[in-house]
Amino acid sequence: MTTKDILEKYKTNQIDLDSALKEIKKANYEDLGFAKLDQNRKERTGANEVVFCQNKDNDFLIKIFKTLYAENKEILGTRATKEQYELLKQHINNIEYNHLAKTLKISQNKELVGNVVILTAGTADIGVAEEAFETCTFLGSHVERIYDVGVSGIHRLLSQEEKLNKANCIIAVAGMEGALASVVAGLVKVPVIAVPTSVGYGANFGGLSALLTMLNSCSNGIATVNIDNGYGAGYLANQINKLAVGIK
Amino acid sequence: MTTKDILEKYKTNQIDLDSALKEIKKANYEDLGFAKLDQNRKERTGANEVVFCQNKDNDFLIKIFKTLYAENKEILGTRATKEQYELLKQHINNIEYNHLAKTLKISQNKELVGNVVILTAGTADIGVAEEAFETCTFLGSHVERIYDVGVSGIHRLLSQEEKLNKANCIIAVAGMEGALASVVAGLVKVPVIAVPTSVGYGANFGGLSALLTMLNSCSNGIATVNIDNGYGAGYLANQINKLAVGIK
Amino acid sequence: MTTKDILEKYKTNQIDLDSALKEIKKANYEDLGFAKLDQNRKERTGANEVVFCQNKDNDFLIKIFKTLYAENKEILGTRATKEQYELLKQHINNIEYNHLAKTLKISQNKELVGNVVILTAGTADIGVAEEAFETCTFLGSHVERIYDVGVSGIHRLLSQEEKLNKANCIIAVAGMEGALASVVAGLVKVPVIAVPTSVGYGANFGGLSALLTMLNSCSNGIATVNIDNGYGAGYLANQINKLAVGIK
Amino acid sequence: MTTKDILEKYKTNQIDLDSALKEIKKANYEDLGFAKLDQNRKERTGANEVVFCQNKDNDFLIKIFKTLYAENKEILGTRATKEQYELLKQHINNIEYNHLAKTLKISQNKELVGNVVILTAGTADIGVAEEAFETCTFLGSHVERIYDVGVSGIHRLLSQEEKLNKANCIIAVAGMEGALASVVAGLVKVPVIAVPTSVGYGANFGGLSALLTMLNSCSNGIATVNIDNGYGAGYLANQINKLAVGIK
Amino acid sequence: MTTKDILEKYKTNQIDLDSALKEIKKANYEDLGFAKLDQNRKERTGANEVVFCQNKDNDFLIKIFKTLYAENKEILGTRATKEQYELLKQHINNIEYNHLAKTLKISQNKELVGNVVILTAGTADIGVAEEAFETCTFLGSHVERIYDVGVSGIHRLLSQEEKLNKANCIIAVAGMEGALASVVAGLVKVPVIAVPTSVGYGANFGGLSALLTMLNSCSNGIATVNIDNGYGAGYLANQINKLAVGIK
Amino acid sequence: MTTKDILEKYKTNQIDLDSALKEIKKANYEDLGFAKLDQNRKERTGANEVVFCQNKDNDFLIKIFKTLYAENKEILGTRATKEQYELLKQHINNIEYNHLAKTLKISQNKELVGNVVILTAGTADIGVAEEAFETCTFLGSHVERIYDVGVSGIHRLLSQEEKLNKANCIIAVAGMEGALASVVAGLVKVPVIAVPTSVGYGANFGGLSALLTMLNSCSNGIATVNIDNGYGAGYLANQINKLAVGIK
Amino acid sequence: MTTKDILEKYKTNQIDLDSALKEIKKANYEDLGFAKLDQNRKERTGANEVVFCQNKDNDFLIKIFKTLYAENKEILGTRATKEQYELLKQHINNIEYNHLAKTLKISQNKELVGNVVILTAGTADIGVAEEAFETCTFLGSHVERIYDVGVSGIHRLLSQEEKLNKANCIIAVAGMEGALASVVAGLVKVPVIAVPTSVGYGANFGGLSALLTMLNSCSNGIATVNIDNGYGAGYLANQINKLAVGIK
Amino acid sequence: MTTKDILEKYKTNQIDLDSALKEIKKANYEDLGFAKLDQNRKERTGANEVVFCQNKDNDFLIKIFKTLYAENKEILGTRATKEQYELLKQHINNIEYNHLAKTLKISQNKELVGNVVILTAGTADIGVAEEAFETCTFLGSHVERIYDVGVSGIHRLLSQEEKLNKANCIIAVAGMEGALASVVAGLVKVPVIAVPTSVGYGANFGGLSALLTMLNSCSNGIATVNIDNGYGAGYLANQINKLAVGIK
Repeated sequence: MTTKDILEKYKTNQIDLDSALKEIKKANYEDLGFAKLDQNRKERTGANEVVFCQNKDNDFLIKIFKTLYAENKEILGTRATKEQYELLKQHINNIEYNHLAKTLKISQNKELVGNVVILTAGTADIGVAEEAFETCTFLGSHVERIYDVGVSGIHRLLSQEEKLNKANCIIAVAGMEGALASVVAGLVKVPVIAVPTSVGYGANFGGLSALLTMLNSCSNGIATVNIDNGYGAGYLANQINKLAVGIK
Repeated sequence: MTTKDILEKYKTNQIDLDSALKEIKKANYEDLGFAKLDQNRKERTGANEVVFCQNKDNDFLIKIFKTLYAENKEILGTRATKEQYELLKQHINNIEYNHLAKTLKISQNKELVGNVVILTAGTADIGVAEEAFETCTFLGSHVERIYDVGVSGIHRLLSQEEKLNKANCIIAVAGMEGALASVVAGLVKVPVIAVPTSVGYGANFGGLSALLTMLNSCSNGIATVNIDNGYGAGYLANQINKLAVGIK
Repeated sequence: MTTKDILEKYKTNQIDLDSALKEIKKANYEDLGFAKLDQNRKERTGANEVVFCQNKDNDFLIKIFKTLYAENKEILGTRATKEQYELLKQHINNIEYNHLAKTLKISQNKELVGNVVILTAGTADIGVAEEAFETCTFLGSHVERIYDVGVSGIHRLLSQEEKLNKANCIIAVAGMEGALASVVAGLVKVPVIAVPTSVGYGANFGGLSALLTMLNSCSNGIATVNIDNGYGAGYLANQINKLAVGIK
Repeated sequence: MTTKDILEKYKTNQIDLDSALKEIKKANYEDLGFAKLDQNRKERTGANEVVFCQNKDNDFLIKIFKTLYAENKEILGTRATKEQYELLKQHINNIEYNHLAKTLKISQNKELVGNVVILTAGTADIGVAEEAFETCTFLGSHVERIYDVGVSGIHRLLSQEEKLNKANCIIAVAGMEGALASVVAGLVKVPVIAVPTSVGYGANFGGLSALLTMLNSCSNGIATVNIDNGYGAGYLANQINKLAVGIK
Repeated sequence: MTTKDILEKYKTNQIDLDSALKEIKKANYEDLGFAKLDQNRKERTGANEVVFCQNKDNDFLIKIFKTLYAENKEILGTRATKEQYELLKQHINNIEYNHLAKTLKISQNKELVGNVVILTAGTADIGVAEEAFETCTFLGSHVERIYDVGVSGIHRLLSQEEKLNKANCIIAVAGMEGALASVVAGLVKVPVIAVPTSVGYGANFGGLSALLTMLNSCSNGIATVNIDNGYGAGYLANQINKLAVGIK
Repeated sequence: MTTKDILEKYKTNQIDLDSALKEIKKANYEDLGFAKLDQNRKERTGANEVVFCQNKDNDFLIKIFKTLYAENKEILGTRATKEQYELLKQHINNIEYNHLAKTLKISQNKELVGNVVILTAGTADIGVAEEAFETCTFLGSHVERIYDVGVSGIHRLLSQEEKLNKANCIIAVAGMEGALASVVAGLVKVPVIAVPTSVGYGANFGGLSALLTMLNSCSNGIATVNIDNGYGAGYLANQINKLAVGIK
Repeated sequence: MTTKDILEKYKTNQIDLDSALKEIKKANYEDLGFAKLDQNRKERTGANEVVFCQNKDNDFLIKIFKTLYAENKEILGTRATKEQYELLKQHINNIEYNHLAKTLKISQNKELVGNVVILTAGTADIGVAEEAFETCTFLGSHVERIYDVGVSGIHRLLSQEEKLNKANCIIAVAGMEGALASVVAGLVKVPVIAVPTSVGYGANFGGLSALLTMLNSCSNGIATVNIDNGYGAGYLANQINKLAVGIK
Repeated sequence: MTTKDILEKYKTNQIDLDSALKEIKKANYEDLGFAKLDQNRKERTGANEVVFCQNKDNDFLIKIFKTLYAENKEILGTRATKEQYELLKQHINNIEYNHLAKTLKISQNKELVGNVVILTAGTADIGVAEEAFETCTFLGSHVERIYDVGVSGIHRLLSQEEKLNKANCIIAVAGMEGALASVVAGLVKVPVIAVPTSVGYGANFGGLSALLTMLNSCSNGIATVNIDNGYGAGYLANQINKLAVGIK
């Protein structure tokens, strides 16, 4: 029941003042008891709820996947283990697993629009980049991936300038000192989404070093997300890319 | 001398191989000795160099402002003190100072396009928001400001929903616990640029609390910039807004 | 032997001055050698000692449970593993295990009084919330649980306003950025006990992000406890709830 | 215009559907442009807005004080400098300044109810304690102050047990290692609100040492607030004390 | 060859100037290649080298134990696993393992002198306390252990005052908020060696909370050692106790 | 009134049971309202209360000095400014100020016993060392000072070995990396009290680097105190030195 | 195709202006899709790419080793597990594994030049030292290893002075408080490369204590690398040693 | 008196055994009481003692400068204020002050050898770079300065490649995210000394962000020094440069 419905029912005396006041405050969501699935999220924010699978109880996970899939006919889960994949595919046919990205997905056929470029500094950053890739394509954006172009051999990056200039938005994934984002943002006109990764050792403090690098960049036009947060970067890139192709 | 020029000169034997190799590596910038002004930055990144005035030597400051102003006919300086303003207006007519934003500006008349919304959680966050405002309008975007809509009285924010839905990009400026960004991002379809401020006391650790809040948000579509970095937020918002109105 | 007893014995010359001086300093507790069970804690603080089971030696654990159960006819243990449950139920009949809360319990039949509401931001916070629930009901308070009402879909929370207004005390359990506590405290008249959880990843630093959010809240009336400390929150909520129904 | 009013107007066709939908989302607040004063806060949370004076622009400060005072006939400001006091007393008669608490106040005559006890570990913690005192009495609670009873001479604290046992709620203010809260909470039945202060030096890290002590206390029933946050402690203590005397 | 020997040899022309210069710089130690056993440590510092077993290679461990045992006829190893014990007892008869302390020991019969008291706040701190106990007795001090006397039930500690007053030195072992050291040091005349433990959870940050508490104590006469460093505390306590009984 | 007095009065019926119970809990201290001077501290801990002057209100300071001086005929104040000295010498004759140590003192003529050695790594550490010196001599220990013997020129330290071997206790004061304590403790048989100082810059983080060095020392027999805490080191050194000369 | 080739081709009209512009930006590297092997690194920086094996996918690892080995006829891998060694030796004959250093290597016969000394403070630091050793010798430097010469028994270090004075560069590997680097640097004329290790416990915070010690050293001539970064130290030492023997 | 002298005197019976033993341990230094000037430092480490002027007492400063200048006929002081310069030039003629570097200097005429390059990322880093410059030239190295070549406009750096390739050692000075060091080290064969500066704001945490970047660099051959430590970088660069020209 939407707010509009409530107002109509109240006006036509199907419900009284008290009920109307209460109902107006209630939003639409499906209450599973342990979870309240946010079913008007797409209308409100432009995208359906994505399932964060990490540490979820098996029973909870199955119920959530079934409910959301029934509703939306497509679904994306992140931070999923191989065991969760084995479990869920017994309940939902044709669910797919990307073992690098650790994502579970059933996706509707849809045209991918615009152009997002995802860069990684090294090969160890590929898992995070793939999570961004899966999210961004699931949401409808076309993505180009360019991996292993870190600044210790800067010619590898400079040689990609043409592709960089064609993007509506660039995701730069880097661990260790995370300098990739600064160099890229100095070369292009569009926003660079910087994803620090926990790749490294010693005083990288689980990705803190790359995070601070990106937040403190001397270059302009950098949007930082949380450490290892490929999902968040993909979501944000899709928003920007869609705006660039006139979809809001 | 552009790379194209160099190639032509080499082909027509005006320069030899060695010189060509060297020149190709040299980019265009004006060398003041203590500074190398990046004069092809606009071509490369879409915006001229902005001057970070904090702690700059007076002589350096005057030279940089004069050089850049002569080149571009407009200029923006950030983190400027009142004393720096008094000094510079003796050398450059009609330079203007926003004492809340701490910005210095001479701006060309230009049409402001698109729509960016800047929110603050409290009144103490206004200085940072004004820096974002000055940057974003200097770069050519239309901006709407809505101040003091923090989550401790959430009805103040909810009543702005219509304006929020019209924006191409929203900047959320908040100190203390910085929860504003999370709530806003749960309400809209467009990217939210989150600016943590150092406003607060005790365990806010100079803005760290708000920064961590924003990086760890449970909402999607949040781009975080550095603490108190209104400039960075304004720059990024302009990029996104321009993409949304078809300019790249 | 209470202080009163000692005074009487001294006055009636059953003990001499020296003994009296010593005895007065001795409080009542049962000394197991490796542990000193605080048996007048209920008289002093209103609640019996609860057993923190984590990493306790098996032999120690059995002795402590037996001794306290014999004394009080009820017992609560927190942070207990399934293995500890299997062990203890061989020694103490009808001990119960809540695998989400990780609590062990034998509880006397008692009337639950007042009204405490426990909220979680997400489903991953339920374990901590259940620990609070078990503690709070064990101590005699009536509790209502409302799970998965985080701020990324704020309508889920706003629709609960009626229940919130009936509570004497609210526990808000949240990980990631922990903004739930700020929003709730802006809506109600009663204390909000904020429990940061270690749920999240990247720059959440094991719950530090949520902890700082709660300590720095722009809303009033927030009492913060340690990260993942459902027990502490349940204990505090019971104290406040009891005061509200006139028990001290 | 309340939600009820809106519903009535819509039913009686004074406003159309569209307007009703919009109005329902708007809450009541006074918009000063730079600030949105939360005038239904008392109805919602039980207490009027208190002004955080630190770093506020003089013009803003005067306008906020005048507006809120006109509305509520009483006002409390915290973190106010002597200069702000000198300024405001030119605009608002009989405003009072507590130089230890750094509070500004005009208070209505009201009966102070219940019983809150405020303790400090040392004399250097008195400023924070006085801020709590001013807040708590402004909101209507009776307060007893007991200063300089830190644990390095524990007999000073133990001798106050009678007073502690009469309180509905105890505020423990301590810097350095902040052990006071743990000891007090082990002695009483009611909640202890722990306020870490920045008093100390070296590895106290601006109050972090006392904050961590209080969050990690081995005693039960401790509610921690932010470092030096006397205001927050006073607010929370009043809430609990009011519940204990049957006011909600 | 001692420095004295070298001088004599040089004077009597058994070695030349060059050799003498070199030899003087060489101290006495046994070089195993991978390790240089410090065999004049006892003469210099009063105690033989103790073996830190954690992560030591099995071959290295056996060689070190054999060499030192042959030399000193007694040996102490700390942070030893059960597996290391099983291994070493195949090579060295009558080596003993304290599974709480995780120490390996062969000790000469010796009179234990003076009086050291070891306190723990809780039962979970006993492992660290036992490491201190084993070290301190190995080095020749008499030790009394009093466990589980934390400040949440302060009467348990106060009742031990007599024993505390008889000690030459007190070791206070505590995790969580670590307040035990402050309270004890306020009661006695002798040094209190404070050992923070990593016992706790949430914002205890692996013992940091207790460490900061102890460093910032408002009580006098506290000597802090590293987190979980029972060995260091036992060593230091023995030094102080020996001084008190006239041994240096 | 001591506990003994109370017991006698009760036995002889001068007070009733209730009064006796209350009085027993009361300790002896002088209550100045804002402060509770701990007048049986010397009996309990062996030393009178020392005044921490930093940030103390002038009126409070005068009252505390007068009261304590009247009681004890000697007094020590630490962290005192020159202004506080100028103020206090108007009220208390012959008070003396050590501008390096920032201490105020009136001391009784007393024999200084035993032998404590204070070392500094550099000249910038002298202020902290002098605070230790003043405290230690005030409490009755003989002290020898050896300054500027840091490890970057280790021969300066090694040449002092004879003096080091005569000490009952050594205080090592060092900033920057604080390695002095480790080297000294490897050379001697007695406890080394390590005082980290905030001397340094960059990543010394206000003394944290030296503090961590000292806590993690590979040498045995190191007692660490808080950053810049010369007072605490002097207090502890006096305790140990007194034990060594047979005073407890 | 080198830049020189491109220029020639353009001049001789084998490629047009556009192609030349593009090609100039392209550097030489082999693109494996998931990785871009930096094959002109030796020409540019003097050393071939070394493989960081940690967490590398097996398929990726095999391809990278094969490609680089084919190209360079020698290869070094760091942070390799025993399992990776077992895998790779099935594909590449005569690959060798140093289980202390965790390195994989096939090395060409080459003369080792100059003189680098590697010191460790303890035996637990040997693994990191061996990684430095393997790297430095692989790159062509002669290395002397001196292990277990930490400052707690400083004579062990002082007796090595002659060897230290012969080195062109010294690597000092130390955990715990890391004081070794300071003492060594005070004794010699050449650069000391300081490698903090994560060896230790408690407040060593995974090597942070040793890292801060080394960065804040009071001695001159210290170059710090990341925690446990034996590879980085070996690389840097080889650079310096080569310069000293006239190779650049 | 050198060790050699002592041995001779002992052999020829000018001193007895006891005296010889003592004298051998004594090194040569001048004892000013508050300071022990390390006068054989040049012989041992290749460079005279440099004076760290920050916070030095005026009297101490004058004495140290006079003593060292008399000895060495040249002197360098770092972190000197203008006031210290004014003071010292009254006592020592022809002392010179570099107000950017904050250094005081009297230098002997000497040939500057080799080639060191100092880079800065921005103009705000120039002060630290100048301190490195003054140190490095004082010690005898030839230095070339190239300022304002940060990575946000990477062509500025790339155009300097020729100069970079001629250096024996490069110092890279950078604040904010400090990415300059990584990019430079990827381009050259010689060691890069990375100096993080405290330039920046927000989450740069006083230089920590740049420090972590440099320690975690994905490029090889980086030697990191403390934040803002231009002196340390200059010292180290001179050592490496001297080795490269054959001086040790």
